[in-house]
Amino acid sequence: MKQVAVILSGSGVYDGAELQEAVLSLLAIESEGASYQCFAPDVDQLHVINHLTGEVAEGETRNVLVESARITRGDIKPLSECDVSLFDTLILPGGFGVAKNLCTFAVDGAECSFNEDVLTVCQAFAKAKKPAAYACIAPALAAKVYGNGVKLTIGNDEATAQGLNALGATHIDCEVDDVVVDNEMKLVTTPAYMLAENVSQAYRSITKMVKTVLSMK
Amino acid sequence: MKQVAVILSGSGVYDGAELQEAVLSLLAIESEGASYQCFAPDVDQLHVINHLTGEVAEGETRNVLVESARITRGDIKPLSECDVSLFDTLILPGGFGVAKNLCTFAVDGAECSFNEDVLTVCQAFAKAKKPAAYACIAPALAAKVYGNGVKLTIGNDEATAQGLNALGATHIDCEVDDVVVDNEMKLVTTPAYMLAENVSQAYRSITKMVKTVLSMK
Repeated sequence: MKQVAVILSGSGVYDGAELQEAVLSLLAIESEGASYQCFAPDVDQLHVINHLTGEVAEGETRNVLVESARITRGDIKPLSECDVSLFDTLILPGGFGVAKNLCTFAVDGAECSFNEDVLTVCQAFAKAKKPAAYACIAPALAAKVYGNGVKLTIGNDEATAQGLNALGATHIDCEVDDVVVDNEMKLVTTPAYMLAENVSQAYRSITKMVKTVLSMK
Repeated sequence: MKQVAVILSGSGVYDGAELQEAVLSLLAIESEGASYQCFAPDVDQLHVINHLTGEVAEGETRNVLVESARITRGDIKPLSECDVSLFDTLILPGGFGVAKNLCTFAVDGAECSFNEDVLTVCQAFAKAKKPAAYACIAPALAAKVYGNGVKLTIGNDEATAQGLNALGATHIDCEVDDVVVDNEMKLVTTPAYMLAENVSQAYRSITKMVKTVLSMK
Protein backbone atom coordinates (compact mmCIF):
# COMPACT_ATOMS: atom_id res chain seq x y z
CA MET A 1 0.00 0.00 0.00
CA LYS A 2 1.41 3.35 -1.04
CA GLN A 3 2.04 5.84 1.75
CA VAL A 4 1.22 9.47 0.97
CA ALA A 5 2.39 12.53 2.89
CA VAL A 6 -0.16 15.36 2.65
CA ILE A 7 0.88 18.90 3.57
CA LEU A 8 -1.91 21.21 4.79
CA SER A 9 -1.71 24.98 5.27
CA GLY A 10 -4.60 25.81 7.59
CA SER A 11 -8.36 25.30 7.24
CA GLY A 12 -10.31 27.64 4.95
CA VAL A 13 -9.64 28.82 1.39
CA TYR A 14 -8.85 32.48 2.11
CA ASP A 15 -6.21 32.05 4.84
CA GLY A 16 -5.50 28.32 4.89
CA ALA A 17 -5.87 25.09 2.94
CA GLU A 18 -8.87 24.91 0.60
CA LEU A 19 -10.62 22.50 2.92
CA GLN A 20 -12.84 21.00 0.22
CA GLU A 21 -9.75 20.20 -1.85
CA ALA A 22 -8.09 18.75 1.25
CA VAL A 23 -11.02 16.47 2.11
CA LEU A 24 -11.44 15.42 -1.54
CA SER A 25 -7.71 14.61 -1.71
CA LEU A 26 -7.96 12.35 1.34
CA LEU A 27 -11.03 10.65 -0.16
CA ALA A 28 -9.28 10.17 -3.51
CA ILE A 29 -6.16 8.75 -1.83
CA GLU A 30 -8.22 6.17 0.07
CA SER A 31 -10.30 5.41 -3.02
CA GLU A 32 -7.10 4.50 -4.86
CA GLY A 33 -6.15 2.08 -2.09
CA ALA A 34 -3.37 4.22 -0.65
CA SER A 35 -2.83 5.47 2.91
CA TYR A 36 -1.93 8.97 4.10
CA GLN A 37 -0.45 10.98 6.95
CA CYS A 38 -1.16 14.72 7.12
CA PHE A 39 1.42 17.32 8.16
CA ALA A 40 1.47 21.08 8.60
CA PRO A 41 4.10 23.58 9.74
CA ASP A 42 3.79 24.71 13.37
CA VAL A 43 3.72 28.44 12.58
CA ASP A 44 1.23 31.29 12.83
CA GLN A 45 -0.91 32.04 9.78
CA LEU A 46 -0.11 35.21 7.84
CA HIS A 47 -3.51 36.47 9.03
CA VAL A 48 -7.06 35.36 9.72
CA ILE A 49 -9.73 36.09 7.10
CA ASN A 50 -13.40 36.26 8.06
CA HIS A 51 -14.72 33.90 5.36
CA LEU A 52 -18.20 35.46 5.52
CA THR A 53 -17.06 39.01 4.76
CA GLY A 54 -13.71 38.34 3.10
CA GLU A 55 -12.06 40.87 5.42
CA VAL A 56 -9.04 40.46 7.69
CA ALA A 57 -10.04 39.68 11.29
CA GLU A 58 -7.86 42.29 13.00
CA GLY A 59 -6.11 41.14 16.15
CA GLU A 60 -6.81 37.45 15.59
CA THR A 61 -3.99 34.93 15.23
CA ARG A 62 -4.28 31.25 14.39
CA ASN A 63 -1.68 28.50 14.05
CA VAL A 64 -1.37 26.59 10.77
CA LEU A 65 -0.87 23.19 12.42
CA VAL A 66 -3.70 23.69 14.94
CA GLU A 67 -6.18 24.85 12.28
CA SER A 68 -5.15 22.12 9.82
CA ALA A 69 -6.04 19.61 12.55
CA ARG A 70 -9.70 20.58 11.99
CA ILE A 71 -9.57 18.95 8.56
CA THR A 72 -8.05 15.72 9.89
CA ARG A 73 -10.07 15.28 13.11
CA GLY A 74 -6.87 15.88 15.08
CA ASP A 75 -4.70 13.31 13.28
CA ILE A 76 -1.83 15.43 12.02
CA LYS A 77 1.87 15.93 12.76
CA PRO A 78 4.22 18.90 12.67
CA LEU A 79 5.89 19.04 9.27
CA SER A 80 9.30 19.04 10.98
CA GLU A 81 8.58 15.41 11.93
CA CYS A 82 8.03 14.27 8.33
CA ASP A 83 10.51 11.49 7.51
CA VAL A 84 10.43 11.48 3.71
CA SER A 85 11.96 7.99 3.57
CA LEU A 86 8.70 6.58 4.97
CA PHE A 87 6.54 7.91 2.12
CA ASP A 88 6.13 7.10 -1.58
CA THR A 89 4.29 10.22 -2.68
CA LEU A 90 3.64 13.84 -1.68
CA ILE A 91 0.33 15.66 -2.16
CA LEU A 92 -0.44 19.33 -1.55
CA PRO A 93 -4.01 20.59 -1.80
CA GLY A 94 -4.38 24.31 -2.57
CA GLY A 95 -5.98 27.32 -0.94
CA PHE A 96 -4.47 30.73 -0.17
CA GLY A 97 -2.78 29.12 2.82
CA VAL A 98 -0.19 27.65 0.46
CA ALA A 99 0.59 31.12 -0.90
CA LYS A 100 0.33 32.90 2.47
CA ASN A 101 1.55 30.43 5.09
CA LEU A 102 3.81 27.94 3.26
CA CYS A 103 5.32 30.70 1.14
CA THR A 104 4.47 34.37 0.53
CA PHE A 105 3.57 34.13 -3.17
CA ALA A 106 0.14 35.74 -2.60
CA VAL A 107 1.86 38.86 -1.21
CA ASP A 108 5.27 38.96 -2.90
CA GLY A 109 4.77 37.11 -6.21
CA ALA A 110 8.01 35.84 -7.71
CA GLU A 111 9.98 37.62 -4.94
CA CYS A 112 8.33 35.43 -2.30
CA SER A 113 10.01 33.67 0.59
CA PHE A 114 9.42 30.05 1.61
CA ASN A 115 8.87 28.29 4.92
CA GLU A 116 12.06 26.33 5.59
CA ASP A 117 10.42 23.10 6.74
CA VAL A 118 8.12 23.11 3.71
CA LEU A 119 10.97 23.67 1.30
CA THR A 120 13.09 20.98 2.96
CA VAL A 121 10.37 18.32 2.76
CA CYS A 122 9.22 19.19 -0.76
CA GLN A 123 12.80 19.27 -2.05
CA ALA A 124 13.52 15.91 -0.41
CA PHE A 125 10.65 14.31 -2.36
CA ALA A 126 11.91 15.93 -5.58
CA LYS A 127 15.51 14.88 -4.98
CA ALA A 128 14.48 11.30 -4.20
CA LYS A 129 12.50 11.25 -7.49
CA LYS A 130 9.34 10.39 -5.55
CA PRO A 131 6.16 11.45 -7.37
CA ALA A 132 4.41 14.58 -6.10
CA ALA A 133 1.11 16.33 -6.86
CA TYR A 134 0.25 19.98 -6.23
CA ALA A 135 -3.28 21.36 -6.73
CA CYS A 136 -4.75 24.82 -7.29
CA ILE A 137 -2.21 27.52 -6.28
CA ALA A 138 0.20 25.00 -4.69
CA PRO A 139 2.21 24.81 -7.96
CA ALA A 140 3.68 28.20 -6.91
CA LEU A 141 5.61 26.16 -4.38
CA ALA A 142 6.44 23.47 -6.95
CA ALA A 143 7.91 26.11 -9.29
CA LYS A 144 10.48 26.98 -6.62
CA VAL A 145 11.10 23.37 -5.57
CA TYR A 146 11.65 21.96 -9.07
CA GLY A 147 12.69 24.97 -11.19
CA ASN A 148 14.54 23.97 -14.39
CA GLY A 149 11.51 24.77 -16.53
CA VAL A 150 9.34 22.17 -14.81
CA LYS A 151 5.99 21.80 -16.58
CA LEU A 152 3.02 22.64 -14.38
CA THR A 153 -0.35 24.42 -14.30
CA ILE A 154 -2.55 26.63 -12.16
CA GLY A 155 -5.25 26.71 -14.86
CA ASN A 156 -5.18 29.73 -17.15
CA ASP A 157 -4.70 32.90 -15.08
CA GLU A 158 -2.05 34.81 -17.00
CA ALA A 159 -0.61 36.94 -14.20
CA THR A 160 -0.25 33.95 -11.87
CA ALA A 161 1.25 31.88 -14.69
CA GLN A 162 3.86 34.57 -15.33
CA GLY A 163 4.72 34.56 -11.63
CA LEU A 164 5.33 30.81 -11.75
CA ASN A 165 7.46 31.15 -14.86
CA ALA A 166 9.52 33.81 -13.06
CA LEU A 167 10.11 31.24 -10.31
CA GLY A 168 11.59 28.84 -12.88
CA ALA A 169 8.59 26.88 -14.16
CA THR A 170 7.01 26.45 -17.58
CA HIS A 171 3.32 27.12 -17.14
CA ILE A 172 0.90 25.19 -19.36
CA ASP A 173 -2.76 26.17 -19.58
CA CYS A 174 -5.08 23.39 -18.41
CA GLU A 175 -8.81 22.70 -18.13
CA VAL A 176 -10.37 22.21 -14.71
CA ASP A 177 -10.79 18.44 -15.03
CA ASP A 178 -7.38 17.74 -16.50
CA VAL A 179 -3.79 17.56 -15.21
CA VAL A 180 -0.37 18.62 -16.41
CA VAL A 181 2.29 15.94 -15.95
CA ASP A 182 6.06 16.44 -15.97
CA ASN A 183 7.19 12.84 -16.32
CA GLU A 184 10.86 13.62 -15.87
CA MET A 185 10.33 15.51 -12.61
CA LYS A 186 7.45 13.19 -11.58
CA LEU A 187 5.21 16.16 -10.90
CA VAL A 188 1.42 16.28 -11.41
CA THR A 189 -0.56 19.53 -11.15
CA THR A 190 -4.23 20.41 -11.61
CA PRO A 191 -6.23 23.66 -11.43
CA ALA A 192 -8.92 22.51 -8.92
CA TYR A 193 -10.51 25.65 -7.45
CA MET A 194 -8.32 27.95 -9.54
CA LEU A 195 -11.01 27.11 -12.13
CA ALA A 196 -13.59 24.86 -10.50
CA GLU A 197 -17.03 26.39 -10.10
CA ASN A 198 -18.39 23.77 -7.73
CA VAL A 199 -17.38 20.84 -5.55
CA SER A 200 -18.05 18.26 -8.30
CA GLN A 201 -15.59 19.95 -10.65
CA ALA A 202 -13.04 20.21 -7.86
CA TYR A 203 -13.50 16.51 -7.14
CA ARG A 204 -12.91 15.53 -10.77
CA SER A 205 -9.79 17.69 -10.83
CA ILE A 206 -8.41 16.30 -7.57
CA THR A 207 -9.33 12.72 -8.42
CA LYS A 208 -7.50 12.84 -11.75
CA MET A 209 -4.45 14.35 -10.03
CA VAL A 210 -4.40 11.71 -7.29
CA LYS A 211 -4.98 8.78 -9.70
CA THR A 212 -2.20 10.07 -11.94
CA VAL A 213 0.40 10.61 -9.23
CA LEU A 214 -0.38 7.27 -7.56
CA SER A 215 0.05 5.46 -10.88
CA MET A 216 3.64 6.77 -11.18
CA LYS A 217 6.51 4.47 -10.27
CA MET B 1 -33.69 20.26 -9.99
CA LYS B 2 -34.23 19.65 -6.28
CA GLN B 3 -33.17 22.46 -3.95
CA VAL B 4 -31.55 21.40 -0.69
CA ALA B 5 -31.06 23.54 2.41
CA VAL B 6 -27.96 22.49 4.36
CA ILE B 7 -27.51 23.62 7.95
CA LEU B 8 -23.93 23.88 9.23
CA SER B 9 -22.78 24.33 12.82
CA GLY B 10 -19.22 25.65 12.54
CA SER B 11 -16.09 24.14 10.96
CA GLY B 12 -14.31 21.33 12.79
CA VAL B 13 -15.59 18.15 14.41
CA TYR B 14 -14.97 19.02 18.06
CA ASP B 15 -16.65 22.44 18.23
CA GLY B 16 -18.44 22.76 14.88
CA ALA B 17 -19.70 20.84 11.87
CA GLU B 18 -17.75 17.69 11.00
CA LEU B 19 -16.22 19.38 7.97
CA GLN B 20 -15.49 16.14 6.11
CA GLU B 21 -19.16 15.15 6.45
CA ALA B 22 -20.17 18.64 5.31
CA VAL B 23 -17.97 18.58 2.19
CA LEU B 24 -19.02 15.00 1.38
CA SER B 25 -22.68 16.02 1.75
CA LEU B 26 -22.25 18.86 -0.74
CA LEU B 27 -20.46 16.51 -3.15
CA ALA B 28 -23.19 13.88 -2.80
CA ILE B 29 -25.95 16.47 -3.36
CA GLU B 30 -24.33 17.67 -6.60
CA SER B 31 -23.60 14.09 -7.69
CA GLU B 32 -27.34 13.36 -7.43
CA GLY B 33 -28.10 16.33 -9.67
CA ALA B 34 -29.53 18.52 -6.93
CA SER B 35 -28.56 22.05 -5.86
CA TYR B 36 -27.93 23.41 -2.38
CA GLN B 37 -27.76 26.54 -0.25
CA CYS B 38 -25.92 26.43 3.08
CA PHE B 39 -27.13 28.19 6.23
CA ALA B 40 -25.87 28.55 9.79
CA PRO B 41 -27.12 30.41 12.85
CA ASP B 42 -25.40 33.74 13.52
CA VAL B 43 -24.43 32.92 17.12
CA ASP B 44 -21.22 32.32 19.06
CA GLN B 45 -19.96 28.77 19.38
CA LEU B 46 -20.27 27.13 22.81
CA HIS B 47 -16.46 27.19 22.87
CA VAL B 48 -13.39 26.75 20.70
CA ILE B 49 -11.53 23.42 20.80
CA ASN B 50 -7.88 23.19 19.79
CA HIS B 51 -8.23 20.26 17.38
CA LEU B 52 -4.57 19.29 17.80
CA THR B 53 -4.73 18.88 21.60
CA GLY B 54 -8.47 18.37 22.10
CA GLU B 55 -8.46 21.04 24.80
CA VAL B 56 -10.63 24.13 25.14
CA ALA B 57 -8.91 27.25 23.80
CA GLU B 58 -9.51 29.51 26.78
CA GLY B 59 -10.52 33.09 25.96
CA GLU B 60 -11.22 32.39 22.27
CA THR B 61 -14.64 32.95 20.77
CA ARG B 62 -15.78 32.12 17.25
CA ASN B 63 -19.07 32.66 15.44
CA VAL B 64 -20.93 29.66 14.00
CA LEU B 65 -21.94 31.44 10.76
CA VAL B 66 -18.49 32.94 10.18
CA GLU B 67 -16.68 29.62 10.76
CA SER B 68 -19.21 27.65 8.68
CA ALA B 69 -18.36 30.00 5.80
CA ARG B 70 -14.92 28.32 5.68
CA ILE B 71 -16.57 25.12 4.45
CA THR B 72 -18.54 26.91 1.72
CA ARG B 73 -15.91 29.35 0.44
CA GLY B 74 -18.02 32.22 1.78
CA ASP B 75 -21.31 31.20 0.15
CA ILE B 76 -23.62 30.86 3.13
CA LYS B 77 -26.59 32.71 4.66
CA PRO B 78 -27.79 33.31 8.20
CA LEU B 79 -30.29 30.59 9.11
CA SER B 80 -32.84 33.29 10.00
CA GLU B 81 -33.05 34.01 6.25
CA CYS B 82 -33.98 30.43 5.30
CA ASP B 83 -37.34 30.47 3.48
CA VAL B 84 -38.42 26.83 3.75
CA SER B 85 -40.93 27.25 0.89
CA LEU B 86 -38.00 27.59 -1.53
CA PHE B 87 -36.50 24.18 -0.66
CA ASP B 88 -37.47 20.54 -1.26
CA THR B 89 -35.17 18.87 1.24
CA LEU B 90 -33.16 19.56 4.40
CA ILE B 91 -29.75 18.05 5.18
CA LEU B 92 -27.74 18.32 8.40
CA PRO B 93 -24.19 16.97 8.54
CA GLY B 94 -22.94 16.08 12.02
CA GLY B 95 -20.07 17.08 14.28
CA PHE B 96 -20.14 18.23 17.90
CA GLY B 97 -21.28 21.63 16.62
CA VAL B 98 -24.77 20.20 16.19
CA ALA B 99 -24.80 19.09 19.84
CA LYS B 100 -23.00 22.18 21.18
CA ASN B 101 -24.09 25.11 18.97
CA LEU B 102 -27.45 24.10 17.45
CA CYS B 103 -28.58 22.50 20.70
CA THR B 104 -26.89 21.61 23.97
CA PHE B 105 -27.25 17.80 23.78
CA ALA B 106 -23.49 17.29 24.24
CA VAL B 107 -23.67 19.07 27.59
CA ASP B 108 -27.20 18.53 28.86
CA GLY B 109 -28.32 15.26 27.22
CA ALA B 110 -32.09 14.84 27.09
CA GLU B 111 -32.50 18.06 29.16
CA CYS B 112 -30.89 20.11 26.38
CA SER B 113 -32.08 23.40 24.95
CA PHE B 114 -32.33 24.25 21.25
CA ASN B 115 -31.40 27.25 19.13
CA GLU B 116 -34.71 28.89 18.19
CA ASP B 117 -33.87 29.52 14.52
CA VAL B 118 -32.70 25.94 14.09
CA LEU B 119 -35.83 24.51 15.70
CA THR B 120 -38.08 26.80 13.62
CA VAL B 121 -36.51 25.80 10.29
CA CYS B 122 -36.25 22.09 11.08
CA GLN B 123 -39.84 21.98 12.35
CA ALA B 124 -41.06 23.81 9.23
CA PHE B 125 -39.55 21.09 7.01
CA ALA B 126 -41.13 18.41 9.20
CA LYS B 127 -44.55 20.11 9.23
CA ALA B 128 -44.49 20.59 5.44
CA LYS B 129 -43.71 16.85 5.06
CA LYS B 130 -40.54 17.71 3.15
CA PRO B 131 -37.88 14.99 3.36
CA ALA B 132 -34.96 15.60 5.70
CA ALA B 133 -31.66 13.82 6.45
CA TYR B 134 -29.57 14.08 9.60
CA ALA B 135 -26.10 12.52 9.91
CA CYS B 136 -23.87 11.46 12.81
CA ILE B 137 -25.01 13.17 16.04
CA ALA B 138 -27.50 15.48 14.23
CA PRO B 139 -30.34 12.99 14.92
CA ALA B 140 -30.30 14.40 18.48
CA LEU B 141 -31.91 17.43 16.92
CA ALA B 142 -34.27 15.28 14.83
CA ALA B 143 -35.47 13.48 17.97
CA LYS B 144 -36.74 16.79 19.36
CA VAL B 145 -38.09 18.05 16.01
CA TYR B 146 -40.08 14.90 15.14
CA GLY B 147 -40.73 13.19 18.48
CA ASN B 148 -43.66 10.72 18.37
CA GLY B 149 -41.33 7.74 18.39
CA VAL B 150 -39.66 8.73 15.11
CA LYS B 151 -37.29 6.01 13.90
CA LEU B 152 -33.69 7.17 13.65
CA THR B 153 -30.08 6.17 14.31
CA ILE B 154 -26.77 7.48 15.58
CA GLY B 155 -25.11 4.10 15.07
CA ASN B 156 -24.94 1.88 18.15
CA ASP B 157 -23.75 3.95 21.14
CA GLU B 158 -26.12 2.92 23.90
CA ALA B 159 -25.92 6.01 26.11
CA THR B 160 -26.47 8.37 23.20
CA ALA B 161 -29.31 6.18 21.90
CA GLN B 162 -31.02 6.36 25.30
CA GLY B 163 -30.69 10.15 25.23
CA LEU B 164 -32.44 10.28 21.87
CA ASN B 165 -35.19 7.97 23.10
CA ALA B 166 -35.69 10.27 26.09
CA LEU B 167 -36.20 13.11 23.60
CA GLY B 168 -39.06 11.17 21.98
CA ALA B 169 -37.32 9.06 19.32
CA THR B 170 -37.08 5.30 18.71
CA HIS B 171 -33.40 4.58 18.20
CA ILE B 172 -32.49 1.75 15.83
CA ASP B 173 -28.93 0.38 15.69
CA CYS B 174 -27.34 0.82 12.27
CA GLU B 175 -24.12 -0.05 10.44
CA VAL B 176 -21.85 2.74 9.23
CA ASP B 177 -22.73 2.35 5.55
CA ASP B 178 -26.47 2.02 6.03
CA VAL B 179 -29.36 4.36 6.83
CA VAL B 180 -32.47 4.26 8.96
CA VAL B 181 -35.58 5.55 7.18
CA ASP B 182 -38.81 6.70 8.77
CA ASN B 183 -41.08 6.77 5.73
CA GLU B 184 -44.01 8.33 7.54
CA MET B 185 -41.97 11.23 8.90
CA LYS B 186 -39.78 11.35 5.75
CA LEU B 187 -36.63 11.26 7.83
CA VAL B 188 -33.32 9.59 6.86
CA THR B 189 -30.44 9.19 9.34
CA THR B 190 -27.00 7.60 9.11
CA PRO B 191 -24.13 7.08 11.58
CA ALA B 192 -21.33 8.66 9.48
CA TYR B 193 -18.46 9.54 11.87
CA MET B 194 -20.35 8.18 14.89
CA LEU B 195 -18.98 4.91 13.48
CA ALA B 196 -16.84 5.67 10.43
CA GLU B 197 -13.14 4.97 10.82
CA ASN B 198 -12.02 6.84 7.73
CA VAL B 199 -13.20 9.27 5.07
CA SER B 200 -14.21 6.49 2.65
CA GLN B 201 -16.61 4.98 5.18
CA ALA B 202 -17.99 8.43 5.98
CA TYR B 203 -18.51 9.04 2.25
CA ARG B 204 -20.44 5.78 1.81
CA SER B 205 -22.60 6.65 4.81
CA ILE B 206 -23.29 10.20 3.63
CA THR B 207 -23.84 9.16 0.00
CA LYS B 208 -26.44 6.56 0.95
CA MET B 209 -28.20 9.12 3.15
CA VAL B 210 -28.25 11.78 0.43
CA LYS B 211 -29.37 9.36 -2.32
CA THR B 212 -32.15 8.07 -0.09
CA VAL B 213 -33.50 11.44 0.98
CA LEU B 214 -33.36 12.85 -2.55
CA SER B 215 -35.30 9.85 -3.88
CA MET B 216 -38.21 10.64 -1.54
CA LYS B 217 -41.25 12.41 -2.94
